[in-house]
Parts: sequence; structure tokens; C-alpha cells
Amino acid sequence: MALIVQKYGGTSVGDVERIQGVAQRVARYKQAGHDVVVVVSAMSGETNRLMALGQAAGGEKPEARELDVLLASGEQVTIALLSMALGQIGISARSFLGDQVAVQTDFAFGKARIERIDTQKLSLTIEQGSVPVVAGFQGVNADGDITTLGRGGSDTSAVALAAALQADECEICTDVDGVYTADPRIINNARRLGQITFEEMLELASLGSKVLHPRSVEFAGRYKVPLRVLSTFQEGPGTLITMETDNMEQAIVSGIAHALDEAKITVAGVPDVPGIASKILGPIGRKNIEVDMILQNTGADGLTDFTFTVKRQDFAEALATLESVAKEIDAREISGDDAIAKVSIVGVGMRSHAGVATRMFDALAAENINIQMISTSEIKISVVVAERYMELAVRTLHAEFDLHDQAAAADA
Amino acid sequence: MALIVQKYGGTSVGDVERIQGVAQRVARYKQAGHDVVVVVSAMSGETNRLMALGQAAGGEKPEARELDVLLASGEQVTIALLSMALGQIGISARSFLGDQVAVQTDFAFGKARIERIDTQKLSLTIEQGSVPVVAGFQGVNADGDITTLGRGGSDTSAVALAAALQADECEICTDVDGVYTADPRIINNARRLGQITFEEMLELASLGSKVLHPRSVEFAGRYKVPLRVLSTFQEGPGTLITMETDNMEQAIVSGIAHALDEAKITVAGVPDVPGIASKILGPIGRKNIEVDMILQNTGADGLTDFTFTVKRQDFAEALATLESVAKEIDAREISGDDAIAKVSIVGVGMRSHAGVATRMFDALAAENINIQMISTSEIKISVVVAERYMELAVRTLHAEFDLHDQAAAADA
Repeated sequence: MALIVQKYGGTSVGDVERIQGVAQRVARYKQAGHDVVVVVSAMSGETNRLMALGQAAGGEKPEARELDVLLASGEQVTIALLSMALGQIGISARSFLGDQVAVQTDFAFGKARIERIDTQKLSLTIEQGSVPVVAGFQGVNADGDITTLGRGGSDTSAVALAAALQADECEICTDVDGVYTADPRIINNARRLGQITFEEMLELASLGSKVLHPRSVEFAGRYKVPLRVLSTFQEGPGTLITMETDNMEQAIVSGIAHALDEAKITVAGVPDVPGIASKILGPIGRKNIEVDMILQNTGADGLTDFTFTVKRQDFAEALATLESVAKEIDAREISGDDAIAKVSIVGVGMRSHAGVATRMFDALAAENINIQMISTSEIKISVVVAERYMELAVRTLHAEFDLHDQAAAADA
Repeated sequence: MALIVQKYGGTSVGDVERIQGVAQRVARYKQAGHDVVVVVSAMSGETNRLMALGQAAGGEKPEARELDVLLASGEQVTIALLSMALGQIGISARSFLGDQVAVQTDFAFGKARIERIDTQKLSLTIEQGSVPVVAGFQGVNADGDITTLGRGGSDTSAVALAAALQADECEICTDVDGVYTADPRIINNARRLGQITFEEMLELASLGSKVLHPRSVEFAGRYKVPLRVLSTFQEGPGTLITMETDNMEQAIVSGIAHALDEAKITVAGVPDVPGIASKILGPIGRKNIEVDMILQNTGADGLTDFTFTVKRQDFAEALATLESVAKEIDAREISGDDAIAKVSIVGVGMRSHAGVATRMFDALAAENINIQMISTSEIKISVVVAERYMELAVRTLHAEFDLHDQAAAADA
């Protein structure tokens, strides 16, 4: 008998029939003797519907506090419906809003961070044999205002609850059956990973794998909450995300991620003097534009080229911002390109294997794929290539590092 | 400069355009120097949509606590949208959920009663020059659970807030421009009343006039909150509901109400012994069926006929309940009729005028309308007639007591 936190996303609770399916799934765990805490998202489409209403009433960027009140109503509907559906099949359940738990957050409306979770009411509910059904994505600040956690917030809610309740496992129940070596839509013989480390998952999530939100993985890693990604709709072990252990299968590369949502900006011919980076990135940061990769090449003439990437949605604003300060930073030219892709290989095995980067660059060069930028960490190597080479790069690297499904290959 | 609580119902906030219209209306009051607190209902249709979802997930009668969580999300959407819309036109606003105010209620989910309202946060918001936008219909019990107030709950929320804040007036902004001497759909020359007393309004509301919910009128009367019914969509003074004053126009009859939502049940030939009423009504009460009129005729044979009315929706259940206890109460026959109408005349002037009942009965008799039941209070007389005579009875009484619009009559 274990305590399991299960998170169901918008697709899993997309209509009443699916909510009833989730109730059945929860019931199976209860019947097997487990205690279950459920965290749910808004029904799929609901958050977009509410956002459209908000923008109709409040303009392009509605007032942040009120937008959170509006969006939080989405999860409120789901917790009530799921609790009712559980009651209908004889499973005692009790819904909890973020502020009822309470999930205490900071004051950053729309992207609040969880500071503390009171577990008293949830623990009491579990002791009474009931299933707490908690609204994901939302919390409450010290003023009693509703806050929301931003994109992927429900995953974070689930992990934070699992940590606070010292749960045995946190299940992220979704529409895919686990984490794959690469996006199966690009690589048809991609392999589902049985296990992966928090670090690897964090890199994959940050690098564009949409299965889990990076914040939830980071949270799970920090509080050592075993995290499992699995399908709401079909049985299966999914992928367990856990601490690195000695007896873990240590492939050099565990997975390949790709992202098409970045754009790069180059500030060419700026004086190579101390503080130039902050002169360039300062105005960007003040516009709340997030910068991902940063690269600086020093030339022989005392001038330097400075390149960085931002989200594509921020590309136009970032470019405009820099053009208005170009004089001030004494730049020769500012240029940008949003037809780029970032392709990354991730694996804890890189730590103990030399030459992984060389193998990666050689493999791409053999296909005549030009590398525009490189960024590395202890367990990942990312390259920026032209967008049109994205699929070829992923396929090439998937083959190079033997990531394909052996069984599927044998079948073929 | 006054403090005015304004309540906008579902039709007034039915879509984003109408919400923007409400924002403009609130802005006009602010510009005139008033402080305004707004109470809103869910957008029209929203409560029904949520109820349908709830019944799909939770069966015919979903779990009461969860149903309140579900339904309360409707008002949550409206307060956010209206606050945003106010912000868009430069009026500072701040939304409040029932539990954020807090509107403290008892534990009766689905029909909770307000016990106490904390005014601190609202007063602070008003002092800061902001408009508090409060979710009607909802509150919070001592356990921190969301509760809803039942039908007409937003009116009650508004009146209770006005009482707690000692507001100068509580405006019920709706799709009609006031309270009429009779339903204008039946009487085309019905007259809008400039003023009416709480007592009269309470009787009218209880007797079938749909403009205000009886609970809100009762609340307003008890706490002496001047209440005004007026149109959201057109300018006009509406109808002021207030304390009785000496210089008030004292028509004998102020208005005529009708109701088609009742049914009568007759238990004939029961022994006329003490306790028989409770033997009959006891089983009905235990089914939570509300009884309206009660009438008992004593026969010469030691037997009595006992007749009472219930809501039509409870008719079948009430009849079945009595049939199962007929033996026990030794009744000769149990019969029912749901093709009835209740027509009532209401007026504080009745107190000082004798013979009003006789005038009413004579007028109906002159039209050959048979009276099945009579019920009176100090300021109203209700009769039950066959449903098909309803319009005729209302028209007859409207003319008998000179309630028509003199101006309109002159125009014709």
C-alpha cells in the first residue's frame, strides 16, 4: 500500500466521459489498497476559452490579478466534476481549490511560485479514506488572492503536493505512454525509456520535449519525488524519472530533443570591452524577454560578435529593443533569424564518455548540416541549425547513438 | 455622494459586450462622485451549462458540496471579466469571491444562509477609490467550503452587502425597469410603481412576481436597506422599495401577483381529531416538500376535508407520499389538481380599508370565476382558481382596483 499523487491533464479530463474514465482509473488504485491524491487541470480547451473571454473584456494583456481569478475557474469545474464522478462509483472524494489546501505562493500573478503547502486537510481527508481532488495550476498568495503557476503549472502542483505529502510516487497521467528517445512523430522507431534521471529529464524538458514541464521536474528532483509519466488511456509502466543509481542502464545518450520555438539575434561589431554583454542583454531583460543560448566570439580587431537566442514570440520585440539601443552600444549591425531549430542530445553517460561532442558534430557534418551555435552542459549538447535540417539532424543523431527500438527494428 | 451597491443579473452580464455596458454604467456613477460596490451573477446560461455538466458527472442530484464548487465558478468568471472591463475604461476595480470578502454562511450547501459579512477588505478597497466587484450567490462556511445561496442568491448577496456596508441604496439592475401593478405581459396597461413598501414587495415576490427574490426583500426590510429595481439597459428611476411612510401614496391595492407553479391536494373524509394536520403534513415535511396554503373544512359528520398546496414540481411526490399513508390517517379519498393558479392582491392600504376582500370576491364572481381556496394576511388576499381563468382574474382585479396606467389609458 502506497500513497500516490496522480495528475491528469486537460486531454485526460476533456469531457464528462473522460472524467468518468479517470474516476475508474482512480478506483482501481483505491481497490488495490493505495491511497490516492488527484490533481487535475482544466478541461482541454477551457483555458483557451477563458483566455479569449478575458482578452475580449480586458484587452490583449488583461489585468494579471483578474486573469488569474478567471483562469482558476477552469480547474474549479474539473475538481467538482471528478469528485462527483468518483462519488457516483462509490469512491468517497473531496475537492480542494488551491486556497483551500492551501497552496501558498508568492505574488507573481500568472507565474507564481509555490512557497509552502499545508498538508493538514489533505492528510485528514486521506486518513478518512477519501480521495482529495485538488485543483492544479492555482494557489493563493499571502493576501488571499488567487494566483496561477503559469504553463505546466498542474505538473508542478502535483509534484509539490507529492513532496509535501511525502508520497511514494507522483504519476503524470497524460496522452502519451512515456518519455521517448526522440519525438515519435519524427522518429517512428523511437524507444520508450523505462527509466531516466531527473537531470536528463530536466534537460529534455527544457530543450523542447513537451511531456513534462521543466519546473515540475526540477521540483521533483530537488525533493526526490519519484515521478512517472504514463498514459491515462492505456495500461503500462510508462517512464520512471528517478535519482541516478549505479545499476541504471547507462546509455551515453538517453534522448534527443528538438525545439522550433527559438530565434537568434546577432549584434555584430561591438567593442569588446567589459560590460558589453549586460549593455546588450540589460534592455532585453527589462522587457521580461527570456534569453536562452548566449555566444560571444572575439575578433582580432577589438570588436566582437554577440549572438543569443530568445523565444520566437519575443523575437520582434527583442529586435526592436536592440535596434533602439544600437547607437548606445556602438554596434555595427544587428541581425536576426527565426528559421532556426535547436537539436540536443542528453545523457548522464556523457560524464563518463569522452568524445561524444565530436561524434555528434561529425555525424551532422557527414549530412552537410551546418552548425550555427553550440551550447553544452555536463549532460547535454545543443546545436542550432537551420530549421529545414531539424528532422534530418534528429534522425541522424538518433541513429548515431543507437537509440532506436531494437525490437521494432527486428520486426521490420 | 453616496455609497451604492449595484447588482447585475445574468442577462445584464450575458456576454462580453453587455459586461462592457455594465462597466460604462458603473463608470457613470463613479464620475457622478458615488462609491459603488458591484455584485454580479453568472453570465446567463452559464449556471444551466454547469448544472448539466454536474448532472452528467454526478447523476440527477450531484453531491451538494461539489455542486456548489462547480456552480460558484460561474460568478468567478463574471467578476474577473467585469473587473478587467472596468480597468479598460480607467476605473480601478478589484474582484472578490465569496470567501475573499468573506461572506460567512451556514453549512447548508445549495441553500446556505448568510450569517456574517466581513467588510474590512471591501471598505479598504472603496477608500482606495476602487470598485469592489463581488461574486454574488456564493459564500463560505466555517470549514472554508464554498457554499451557494440558492435561487435568487445574488439579490440576497447584494442586499446583505448593502446592509453590512450601511450603503445608501441597493440597486437591483435587471432587464425590467421596475415593479409593475401586474405582469405587463398579461396587463398591457400595467403601471410601474414609483415606490412600494418592503412588506408589499415581499408579498408580491412570495406570490409569484419574479422581479425580486423574497429572501432579498426580507433581508432588505429587516436591515432597512433602501432597495431599487431598475433597468440595466435604459435610464429611469425604477421602483424604490422602502419603509412605509405617512406621505406615501396609499392605494388600497398596490399590485396583483399570479403564480402557476402550484398544485393542490385534498385529503377528504379524515377524522376531525387533534393532531390530524401534523399526521398529514408530517410525512410531506419529511420529504422536504414545502407547503404553501393550508385549508381545513370541518364537516358535520365528525369528518374533515384537508386541502393544501405544494409546488407543481413536488406534486407527484407529495401525492405518492400521502397515498402510502392514507390508511394510517384513515382518509376516505386523496385527490389532487395541478391545473390551478394563485392570484393575489397586495397593498398596505388594506389595513385601513374594510371590504377589500368582498370587492375582490364580487368582481371575480361577476366573471363567473369560481374560487377554490382563499388565504389572507394583513396586506394580501390570495385566491386559488382554475388555471384557465388566471388571465381573466388578473385583468378583472386590475380594473376593479384602478391599477391601470392613467397616462397610457388617456393615450389610448
